[in-house]
Amino acid sequence: MRLSQLFTKTSKTTPADETARNAQLLIQAGYVHKEMAGVYAYLPLGKKVLDNIAQIVREEMNAIGGQEVQMTVLQPRELWEKTDRWDDKKVDNWFKTKLANGTELGVGLTHEEPIVDALKDFVGSYKSLPVYVYQIQTKFRNELRAKSGLLRGREFAMKDMYSMARTQAEHDKLYEQVVEAYGRVYKRLGIGDATYRTFADGGIFTSKFSDEFQTISEIGEDTIYVDESKKLAINKEIYTDENLAKLGLNKADLVEKRGVEVGNIFSLESKYTDALDVYYTDDKGAQQSIIMGCYGIGISRLMGLLAEHFADDKGLVWPEAVAPAKVYLARLGDAPEVVKQADELYEWLGKAGVEVLYDDRDVRAGEKFADADLLGIPYRLVVSAKTTADSYELKARTTDDSKQVSGDELLKLLQITD
Amino acid sequence: MRLSQLFTKTSKTTPADETARNAQLLIQAGYVHKEMAGVYAYLPLGKKVLDNIAQIVREEMNAIGGQEVQMTVLQPRELWEKTDRWDDKKVDNWFKTKLANGTELGVGLTHEEPIVDALKDFVGSYKSLPVYVYQIQTKFRNELRAKSGLLRGREFAMKDMYSMARTQAEHDKLYEQVVEAYGRVYKRLGIGDATYRTFADGGIFTSKFSDEFQTISEIGEDTIYVDESKKLAINKEIYTDENLAKLGLNKADLVEKRGVEVGNIFSLESKYTDALDVYYTDDKGAQQSIIMGCYGIGISRLMGLLAEHFADDKGLVWPEAVAPAKVYLARLGDAPEVVKQADELYEWLGKAGVEVLYDDRDVRAGEKFADADLLGIPYRLVVSAKTTADSYELKARTTDDSKQVSGDELLKLLQITD
Repeated sequence: MRLSQLFTKTSKTTPADETARNAQLLIQAGYVHKEMAGVYAYLPLGKKVLDNIAQIVREEMNAIGGQEVQMTVLQPRELWEKTDRWDDKKVDNWFKTKLANGTELGVGLTHEEPIVDALKDFVGSYKSLPVYVYQIQTKFRNELRAKSGLLRGREFAMKDMYSMARTQAEHDKLYEQVVEAYGRVYKRLGIGDATYRTFADGGIFTSKFSDEFQTISEIGEDTIYVDESKKLAINKEIYTDENLAKLGLNKADLVEKRGVEVGNIFSLESKYTDALDVYYTDDKGAQQSIIMGCYGIGISRLMGLLAEHFADDKGLVWPEAVAPAKVYLARLGDAPEVVKQADELYEWLGKAGVEVLYDDRDVRAGEKFADADLLGIPYRLVVSAKTTADSYELKARTTDDSKQVSGDELLKLLQITD
Repeated sequence: MRLSQLFTKTSKTTPADETARNAQLLIQAGYVHKEMAGVYAYLPLGKKVLDNIAQIVREEMNAIGGQEVQMTVLQPRELWEKTDRWDDKKVDNWFKTKLANGTELGVGLTHEEPIVDALKDFVGSYKSLPVYVYQIQTKFRNELRAKSGLLRGREFAMKDMYSMARTQAEHDKLYEQVVEAYGRVYKRLGIGDATYRTFADGGIFTSKFSDEFQTISEIGEDTIYVDESKKLAINKEIYTDENLAKLGLNKADLVEKRGVEVGNIFSLESKYTDALDVYYTDDKGAQQSIIMGCYGIGISRLMGLLAEHFADDKGLVWPEAVAPAKVYLARLGDAPEVVKQADELYEWLGKAGVEVLYDDRDVRAGEKFADADLLGIPYRLVVSAKTTADSYELKARTTDDSKQVSGDELLKLLQITD
């Protein structure tokens, strides 16, 4: 895309009403627009990053047999009364609304109940199970405070998957498959090394632990204890001698860290399926409970985390897999031969499948370089009067030095993807 | 995808609580799940159709320079008070909700106000204009009645684009570019011939007409008068001698038809931009009003229309461009050589980029054929004990006769895309 066409612009001033660094940077760089606290719109470059993250998650969910659906935002009260999650005294972060005739509706904050209800007609036989169903959807949570930018939204994008199994053993197998898929997601996003499977409280439905995925970060809201050699961690909320023994973790091996929760997995036993009267019939004709699991990844939270985690004092630094473009092509000056070479390079890279942000604007070099840094595009390529026919000045966002490369070298470098 | 893996199943019974044929068929075929009247969840095959429609619209909007964003569902009251569209007496189909602190919020029913507000910081100079911005988003409208299935939803998917221009002439040019892009959308969806640019009431912001795009259909809610040779129509609501004269239409050439509105375009003059204090500075430094247009296409409504428009007494008939798969591969029997041949064919087509629904289930031929018809997949391919090495039985959904084709012929046939 040509920057002269892109309607967003970068800003030199930090937004006064944001304390979270991720939101400050994303607003300054024109990736998002703040609608209200915890509610952000995605502008063209931000939409690309969000879509790139969602696509990586989608691919990994599909790879383990996940089937994608799209549940609804509007929720009927009856469904949630059956599981006792309608009353505001029980669930305190609902947004609620009303039909014209006065009937109360919920604004979707999670989707266990509607998923179970929608699958009712399809999972009656043991032959229909197991199944993974997921969606990438907007969720709404009426948080009292929302000061962490994209890390804690009132309206946010989430991937939520649900599994249904016939037995506890089958459930356990599905559960571990998702743990592995999550590992692949974080690796592709560039935070594999910094992200730990973290044991946490299992909630009210199971005597087991739940799993969180925590990315080590100074900005984390959670305190965790990390065993680096085992690549495991335990959340402070369940950090007791008894639990450490159960999990085979040694106090001496653990280091206290701050973490951002980038995923979670819960065993739900048959709490929701039983409450909603959804059972399956086994091969002997007997009615059996369905064992469920739920698996979340915050898509927009990941965008906020990646923004804040990798940023430096010059701005954003996107991992290649999610960047809105791989190359920032800065054309310096508007001499006809420079324009011609830059235009040709832009087209050539486009045809080779390399996404390029082409800075064809009539502004000085310093401003172009500052924008390339603030926007966090992985590679900066310069075309100027000094550029010769087959030699280009390339600089990675994460290094200070540029180098001269030939066209062949350039393509080779840029086509190495995650 | 293998049908043995797909969690949805078809049903032989028509849902009792649906009067709209599109919803009946889509529910019976397992494409959608009804959450409540006018609110549908999309199951795997339905999600594919919805995404296919959205992608066609996206490509055509990008082709004319549209920049994709994603605005928010939650809406701050202040913004809508500035344009006098907050009060329920003025706009009677809002869903409203409240923050935990009691602040009232809207649940997005359209996005003129937030789009203008989000662009405020970017369109101050004449150099930044013109611009097209669009999104494909879920909208919420508190309709009193919702009995038309996907044709009129309380929660529905819509593409809404907004243009901002410096002058009326520039606006008129942008407007006509979208008219042409809409024509390409309907053509790709297979309803090009049945869809008419239809003059309608321009609303309160302009003395001009607005444009609707009406697909001729018995199920239409609108009455229009069609000039088939000019490929134009006029909505009954403005069907007066005076307007006919203005539009150069002759009563004698017009035929009364029923139509489904599959798109609309409004000239908004500077109503929203002025109200929200968003202006641009021209090349002489003077402040000028920004002229806006808005351009809608109902994505889920199109899905409902295509379902109902093309269906026959056996079920759905999807146009190739939006079908969830191009081929329904029915394997008859489970003799090892049949399984082997069908498995190989499934893999071979997949590698050739042909999307296949592979009916590998242990059910009788009649049930497979009935499902192939109900699901509306464009081509049915049969592998049975009678199939020889390089001869396949192929039948189009829209014909009764099958024919034998070789592998080469098959690929050639299937790779011809829209």
